[in-house]
Amino acid sequence: VADDIARLAAQLADDTIALRRDLHRHPELGWCEFRTTAIVKQRLGQLEPMPIVSGRDLYRGVERLGLPDQRVQDEAQARALAAGTDEGDLETMRGGFTGLSAELQAATAGPTTAIRADLDALPLHESRDPGHFPTSQGFASSVPGVMHACAHDAHTAVLVGVARLLSDLRQQMAGRVRFLFQPAEEGTRGADSFVRAGLLDDVDYVLTFHFLTNVGLGAGEVSAGVSHMLATQKFRAEYTGRASQFASSPHKGRNALTVASAVTLLANSIPRAPGSRSMINIGRLEAGTAANIVPAEATLIGEIRADTQADVDALVSQFRQLSEGVAGGFGVTGSIVQTGYSTDPTCDPELMGIVAKAARPAKLAVREPVPLGASDDAALMIDHVQRQGGHGTYVAIGGGPYCPHHSPEFDVDESTLAPTLELLARTVVELSTRQERRNGP
Amino acid sequence: VADDIARLAAQLADDTIALRRDLHRHPELGWCEFRTTAIVKQRLGQLEPMPIVSGRDLYRGVERLGLPDQRVQDEAQARALAAGTDEGDLETMRGGFTGLSAELQAATAGPTTAIRADLDALPLHESRDPGHFPTSQGFASSVPGVMHACAHDAHTAVLVGVARLLSDLRQQMAGRVRFLFQPAEEGTRGADSFVRAGLLDDVDYVLTFHFLTNVGLGAGEVSAGVSHMLATQKFRAEYTGRASQFASSPHKGRNALTVASAVTLLANSIPRAPGSRSMINIGRLEAGTAANIVPAEATLIGEIRADTQADVDALVSQFRQLSEGVAGGFGVTGSIVQTGYSTDPTCDPELMGIVAKAARPAKLAVREPVPLGASDDAALMIDHVQRQGGHGTYVAIGGGPYCPHHSPEFDVDESTLAPTLELLARTVVELSTRQERRNGP
Amino acid sequence: VADDIARLAAQLADDTIALRRDLHRHPELGWCEFRTTAIVKQRLGQLEPMPIVSGRDLYRGVERLGLPDQRVQDEAQARALAAGTDEGDLETMRGGFTGLSAELQAATAGPTTAIRADLDALPLHESRDPGHFPTSQGFASSVPGVMHACAHDAHTAVLVGVARLLSDLRQQMAGRVRFLFQPAEEGTRGADSFVRAGLLDDVDYVLTFHFLTNVGLGAGEVSAGVSHMLATQKFRAEYTGRASQFASSPHKGRNALTVASAVTLLANSIPRAPGSRSMINIGRLEAGTAANIVPAEATLIGEIRADTQADVDALVSQFRQLSEGVAGGFGVTGSIVQTGYSTDPTCDPELMGIVAKAARPAKLAVREPVPLGASDDAALMIDHVQRQGGHGTYVAIGGGPYCPHHSPEFDVDESTLAPTLELLARTVVELSTRQERRNGP
Amino acid sequence: VADDIARLAAQLADDTIALRRDLHRHPELGWCEFRTTAIVKQRLGQLEPMPIVSGRDLYRGVERLGLPDQRVQDEAQARALAAGTDEGDLETMRGGFTGLSAELQAATAGPTTAIRADLDALPLHESRDPGHFPTSQGFASSVPGVMHACAHDAHTAVLVGVARLLSDLRQQMAGRVRFLFQPAEEGTRGADSFVRAGLLDDVDYVLTFHFLTNVGLGAGEVSAGVSHMLATQKFRAEYTGRASQFASSPHKGRNALTVASAVTLLANSIPRAPGSRSMINIGRLEAGTAANIVPAEATLIGEIRADTQADVDALVSQFRQLSEGVAGGFGVTGSIVQTGYSTDPTCDPELMGIVAKAARPAKLAVREPVPLGASDDAALMIDHVQRQGGHGTYVAIGGGPYCPHHSPEFDVDESTLAPTLELLARTVVELSTRQERRNGP
Repeated sequence: VADDIARLAAQLADDTIALRRDLHRHPELGWCEFRTTAIVKQRLGQLEPMPIVSGRDLYRGVERLGLPDQRVQDEAQARALAAGTDEGDLETMRGGFTGLSAELQAATAGPTTAIRADLDALPLHESRDPGHFPTSQGFASSVPGVMHACAHDAHTAVLVGVARLLSDLRQQMAGRVRFLFQPAEEGTRGADSFVRAGLLDDVDYVLTFHFLTNVGLGAGEVSAGVSHMLATQKFRAEYTGRASQFASSPHKGRNALTVASAVTLLANSIPRAPGSRSMINIGRLEAGTAANIVPAEATLIGEIRADTQADVDALVSQFRQLSEGVAGGFGVTGSIVQTGYSTDPTCDPELMGIVAKAARPAKLAVREPVPLGASDDAALMIDHVQRQGGHGTYVAIGGGPYCPHHSPEFDVDESTLAPTLELLARTVVELSTRQERRNGP
Repeated sequence: VADDIARLAAQLADDTIALRRDLHRHPELGWCEFRTTAIVKQRLGQLEPMPIVSGRDLYRGVERLGLPDQRVQDEAQARALAAGTDEGDLETMRGGFTGLSAELQAATAGPTTAIRADLDALPLHESRDPGHFPTSQGFASSVPGVMHACAHDAHTAVLVGVARLLSDLRQQMAGRVRFLFQPAEEGTRGADSFVRAGLLDDVDYVLTFHFLTNVGLGAGEVSAGVSHMLATQKFRAEYTGRASQFASSPHKGRNALTVASAVTLLANSIPRAPGSRSMINIGRLEAGTAANIVPAEATLIGEIRADTQADVDALVSQFRQLSEGVAGGFGVTGSIVQTGYSTDPTCDPELMGIVAKAARPAKLAVREPVPLGASDDAALMIDHVQRQGGHGTYVAIGGGPYCPHHSPEFDVDESTLAPTLELLARTVVELSTRQERRNGP
Repeated sequence: VADDIARLAAQLADDTIALRRDLHRHPELGWCEFRTTAIVKQRLGQLEPMPIVSGRDLYRGVERLGLPDQRVQDEAQARALAAGTDEGDLETMRGGFTGLSAELQAATAGPTTAIRADLDALPLHESRDPGHFPTSQGFASSVPGVMHACAHDAHTAVLVGVARLLSDLRQQMAGRVRFLFQPAEEGTRGADSFVRAGLLDDVDYVLTFHFLTNVGLGAGEVSAGVSHMLATQKFRAEYTGRASQFASSPHKGRNALTVASAVTLLANSIPRAPGSRSMINIGRLEAGTAANIVPAEATLIGEIRADTQADVDALVSQFRQLSEGVAGGFGVTGSIVQTGYSTDPTCDPELMGIVAKAARPAKLAVREPVPLGASDDAALMIDHVQRQGGHGTYVAIGGGPYCPHHSPEFDVDESTLAPTLELLARTVVELSTRQERRNGP
Repeated sequence: VADDIARLAAQLADDTIALRRDLHRHPELGWCEFRTTAIVKQRLGQLEPMPIVSGRDLYRGVERLGLPDQRVQDEAQARALAAGTDEGDLETMRGGFTGLSAELQAATAGPTTAIRADLDALPLHESRDPGHFPTSQGFASSVPGVMHACAHDAHTAVLVGVARLLSDLRQQMAGRVRFLFQPAEEGTRGADSFVRAGLLDDVDYVLTFHFLTNVGLGAGEVSAGVSHMLATQKFRAEYTGRASQFASSPHKGRNALTVASAVTLLANSIPRAPGSRSMINIGRLEAGTAANIVPAEATLIGEIRADTQADVDALVSQFRQLSEGVAGGFGVTGSIVQTGYSTDPTCDPELMGIVAKAARPAKLAVREPVPLGASDDAALMIDHVQRQGGHGTYVAIGGGPYCPHHSPEFDVDESTLAPTLELLARTVVELSTRQERRNGP
């Protein structure tokens, strides 16, 4: 089997790079991964037997966090259609029902392993600098203001490759492998729905992974797990007061901007433990209409991060209390909506050991777990599986010596794609042979 | 002459109402009065001899305050074109060069009188209530989110009528009459350019007028002048800091939103004299991009009002000082741009007397000067003419028992249009016979 | 009678000045007028028949607003003792029960007239400039940090003189005259207790008066009433959080200073009507103990002023709402205590006419009512008497061309004392002859 | 020698406890350790040869940080005098020149070792609970509001004992030993002056020590050094605006309280690195005088702490910038004075080894270096000696299972005093035999 994997991975290398470039050229924002989903669905649909769940069915009625405006969705669907996406496929995803789950059923009973890739891009203008590889190679983003600057294009391409490879090895495996293509990781929005829709309920092992360029891992290096993932909550606060003509009757207004400004500033006065990573950011404020009107409406968009879920919960509680207090103090009504979140799991040491063992034949050098200092809602999947008695980890792969994530010059070293594909495939095959499973066929 | 005026005004009544309705149906925002200007130009162009200056020529290179974005201008031009406006006309106004000045030269030398109407509408959705007269009569705004809710449609129609009437009486008058159709009164933006372009430099008398529904004047009542106009300044403040990834490096950012929020709140701590109308409003704040980014950019839009120019100047100075101090305190750069302004002139008692005398034959009842408690940049024209030794007033005409200005149900009693037309015509004819003039033919 | 009054007033002139200087030299703060009260009591006690109520009896159990700390009271009592005040007298006033009411009963039935003087000084260091009259004449304050800088010394001396004069004229008068020597006018604290103790309940006419140096009245000029008294409320807000060691556990504290600072700033964002005198001042903030402790306690001292009682009430309500909201927002408890207040009565025109008539023989020139633009809790007495069907006014006497009230160089032209004494005596005698009375003998 | 030390330490045990109790009963605040200094001086003066420098001479003209008001000093001197302190001694310390340096010169040349104890108490009311050992034993503080709640009484008593012990062993030692009794450690004020006066310039080894009850060390346990000392800066900010009568002319004031409140709140918006201990506390704010006056003066007292000196410096710089910006924004002048500071040295491993070796014979169990998470200005001495090429450490001794430092129930297990005395003596004797020295005899 080991040799088969190496051979198959090598065969898939070029295709994987080609797919990554195609996705890179057509980036789509969270809950708008229409073309991306359709392409994955088409690729996986060619494999046998690989039942796929997508569209509205995938979500089984659960809520999805942080959906964009209808206008944004419509524009994205129009772009996907113009780029050749099948209208029927688009129709099933209307309303932001992107992403999919595909399942490989091996010949014999065994554990269930899930692997997750994220699909979405970022609201950034990609660099047009000729020194930027996607630009010089002609596969830079074709969508102004949208860019794959967090390697999700590579993740998706690699996971498609893993599915293809394992499909060929089906007879030599046991149990099941679930391929999860999750929308809207940016803003930590999508994983919650996958968990609540039950896609992780029967999973024994969950593998999640990320190419990283700024954690000290070089290309060809891998951490079988990470530490210091930040728990987080994203939110939108909305305040409604009463407008009035400023020149004649300022005293008849209830100023929502006053409240939003005060909440923004006072949020920084919520005390935090020394040495903690507890913190709160108001990343956007929009309020009011015109110079001569007392602002009646205000919106804040922000996030809370902390070392632990408990710390996030405490900060959220204090922020809500502050928001209510200040709004009430000015006779303005306020509400806070959660638009995304993630947590702080501990990667499973035993599972990390299996990943590490698979790294050597895949020609990846194993490094100590890196302290992430960031959030990825894959954490919700790991946490869920662990709470059910299973195992999970977050594999960090050195993405090359490139710019920080979320910058216009971000890129990934494409030579790392095939080894990663091989690493994941080897790990799954190894796991498929293990007795431990919670859910028999 | 007196009888001629009454007869001509009566003949023009229906046309004036029809024009007002046409303009009401096609409202245009400040510096975007493309169709409006073209229509006025066409109507006045039929009269003889009435030389017209418009387009870029009108402005003689002076700056214009508070121009909208190019996108807004383009959309307005497209709408004007779709509504039948001549492409050549539109071309001359490209860049927001709307408005026009037309001049009637009488047979004999005499004083120069200017009359000013304002052209622009407001960013409001007009009421669709069947009880709203323009809706029931089918001439409500055809442009979503734009509405004539401050009677400028009526002002423009009336002044076109005055020009037509006086054109017929040309042989019986002396001196010159300048008809000023000014853009962008909302936000007190346009008058400054007309003054600085020299359009008031040689004027002996300037008449400005407004239909008002909320100052205690009934339909058929007129004040020959007003008191308590508020001096004002409109501004836009922009702050530029430095963005950073919040989760990893909040301390590397320079938060423009922190500064904008603090300036917004602290502006209310600038002290004001008891009993004064000195006040400052931040009517809009927009800052930042996303939940996980430290905001690098922030924009405030606001206005200052006060009883006197000196009070406005003092508040502007203190606000600038505050803005610079707070921005500097956080290492953020800030700038404040004036986007409009007006002042607090005293209406000329002698000129008010002449208007009052003209009111009776026009069948308008004269009331005491009303305390306005608002701003109109006509004030800049009055102030300028007075400083040059001339006279000016701001005539307030009761617009009927309707909703407050700037509300979606605002309307004007159309039966007041013809009497107003007659009032203005009579006043101009009377002024044309007076010796006093600073500028010979 | 008229001649008697003139003669008696002239005889009392020197004594009145001497008493004023004695009081000026020994100033006492509100609710600490121990020596002052004792001296007034002794002077009035020599007259017959003049029953006096003072000490605890005066207050009939009603609450007194804004009492100073016990320590401040003790120091003031010690000073009064050292200055020769009778120990028995001091004992009756222990606890801040200063002030007194004395009553003259005329031979025949008639209306009841009250005249009020205020007793207290201000926390100011008196000027030692040789150009300052009390300094050059050797009667400047002997108490560091306490000074009569609002003419209450003159008011008290004048009212003692009026009592002496009327005592001599008793046989020629009807009804009763109540002499009210009220403590703690500064901070508008004392009048409330006098009203609630019933001292104004049976009063037909209440005369209150003030020497003023900054309202445009020259020495020898008088206004029989004033307009534009400001309604007001004084308050103390206290916030209690939880202390914590800052270096180790800032997050365990609840910061009362954060709340007090935010309330101080945000109070300025409570909107006010244009042209109104509605305003709020936080005049003092004290919070926290040491650099390394999260502040657990904070105190604000402030006042609200407005044109009308309704406006004050509205501001108080909004300030309470704001205070509760912000405190609640940080988990801090807050409370607001009223420490003084006054209102905005209209002086009685008929009574003003009587005062004006008395001014001429007293050699005082009558001027139009001055707009006061300040507060005096005499307003509560006027308002109370008017609500009961009686009449009241606030007589303003030109105090000379001196510095503003509450400044270290404040002084009163002593040549105005005797005419004022005469004016008040004449007015009372005139009133005593009037039929109108609500309370028969 | 080793046996001599054990014997001598045992002999000194009771005296040391007695001295600690005497000092505990008479606590003195920083720069007011008049009685404490006099007692130490008297005890050391009995030893031979032990030249002592104290009073003004000790400071060689350098500035002292954070001196208390003259009134506080005077009261402390009066208390010291009443408690039997020699008037001549008090005279030499007038002006807050407390503390002393004593020097033991051994027979032969060798290195110079400094040992430092701190003298001052805290502004706290000591617990009167009978369960509080000093209360039950009758040696609780005799000074209301002042208490030794940080073990400085024990430090001083121990160092006096060390001096007595080493004085007896003089013939068996080499080099010099300098005993530093430092005032005003609280607020990290005193060490700076000792360093700048040159008292550490020629030192090869500096030993500093602290009994600690809340770092996980039990009684009988010792850490030869600590990690994670916090760098810090204490400050006082003063703002001066302009007072005005609020009711009549709020707009003529310049409100220092507005500025102080804004600086207090906005200081929390200075961004900090995730996971850092960078933090800023405004521990006290006092501003304004009375309800009806616009506050002209405001004072903030606060501190900054951080992991490193560089982080403190950065925060100080940002706080100054903020303070200047906000003050300037309101036309108020501000100034910030440093009132204390400390730094973040690394304890010397070699020296820690020597201390550790001395612990065993002194019957103290050695534990790993504890993470301090607090500041002690002993750090400035260690840092200074290390910069000159010498060595230093901060020895932490378990003080017993008592309440946190700076709490009214704080206490130290007295059975730890003699072992600590022995530990320090053994360490000094060991050091005296080492060749390494920078400054010959």
